[in-house]
Amino acid sequence: MSKNESKTAIQEVITPAELLKHWQGHRSLTRRVIEAFPEKEFFNHSIGGMRTFAEMTLELLAIAGPGLKEIVTKETQALNEHIDHKDQKNLVLKLWDQATEEIDTYFNQITPDSFQDTIKTFGQYEGTVISSILYFIDNEIHHRGQGYVYLRDLGIEPPFFWER
Amino acid sequence: MSKNESKTAIQEVITPAELLKHWQGHRSLTRRVIEAFPEKEFFNHSIGGMRTFAEMTLELLAIAGPGLKEIVTKETQALNEHIDHKDQKNLVLKLWDQATEEIDTYFNQITPDSFQDTIKTFGQYEGTVISSILYFIDNEIHHRGQGYVYLRDLGIEPPFFWER
Repeated sequence: MSKNESKTAIQEVITPAELLKHWQGHRSLTRRVIEAFPEKEFFNHSIGGMRTFAEMTLELLAIAGPGLKEIVTKETQALNEHIDHKDQKNLVLKLWDQATEEIDTYFNQITPDSFQDTIKTFGQYEGTVISSILYFIDNEIHHRGQGYVYLRDLGIEPPFFWER
Repeated sequence: MSKNESKTAIQEVITPAELLKHWQGHRSLTRRVIEAFPEKEFFNHSIGGMRTFAEMTLELLAIAGPGLKEIVTKETQALNEHIDHKDQKNLVLKLWDQATEEIDTYFNQITPDSFQDTIKTFGQYEGTVISSILYFIDNEIHHRGQGYVYLRDLGIEPPFFWER
């Protein structure tokens, strides 16, 4: 049995392609949560002194594309959460869609045997490639869940969680 | 190269043991979020007509252990979110710890080559073993993120998201 043959013979817990689809499914849902906010409340509404959903979204944008780019290129990226959004949701959604393409491009450059490599994202967070990507996804789910509360607080029904 | 040798030669995206550790790490954080709530507010506080964090926690308890048990035993489990908690956080935490043990026990009975098997959890939700387990984890992160907003709304600082 050659090495390539043995590779297809093994059922993986999850394949890289499945992980990418899983991530982009979550990002598609987050996009619809952004869309569900009225423009003003997207940039202004908050509860208990927390950040607005716009600020959380900028954090997600600062992490996903640049973090993945760093994983692939091995060049340290800055964590830049400050974007001149001009209080316009359309500009944020445009950046979201650019990140979607960026993620597709870079993710497909991760070699299947490098998910267990040790890395340091943004020059400071140590982990493996897989633990870092899972952190990116989990952090998005976490903040999006908070966005759901903001929407409910505003009397707006959020998209179904299970729709991706 | 024997089949067993080829198995160790391949770097998996994530191993079953890593996935279990990842899940239990999240559950450990959720446990600390439950602990952070004052007993009364755990059972009473909500925002925008949403469920209390106690009700969300009962959903998580109804899914994790029973869902995993179903995956391993292939016996359909009922989705039972009604538990006689007597408005006592200690009883819920006890159930949480029992679920932690149950998850360890059943997870280790999943054969490595069965994560891609098609299943139907709780007799109705179709997916693979891995997509179902990821859904259980994602759903917990989602609701826990909502619990963070409840805590902030109550003036309580939640545990750090990155501590597991």
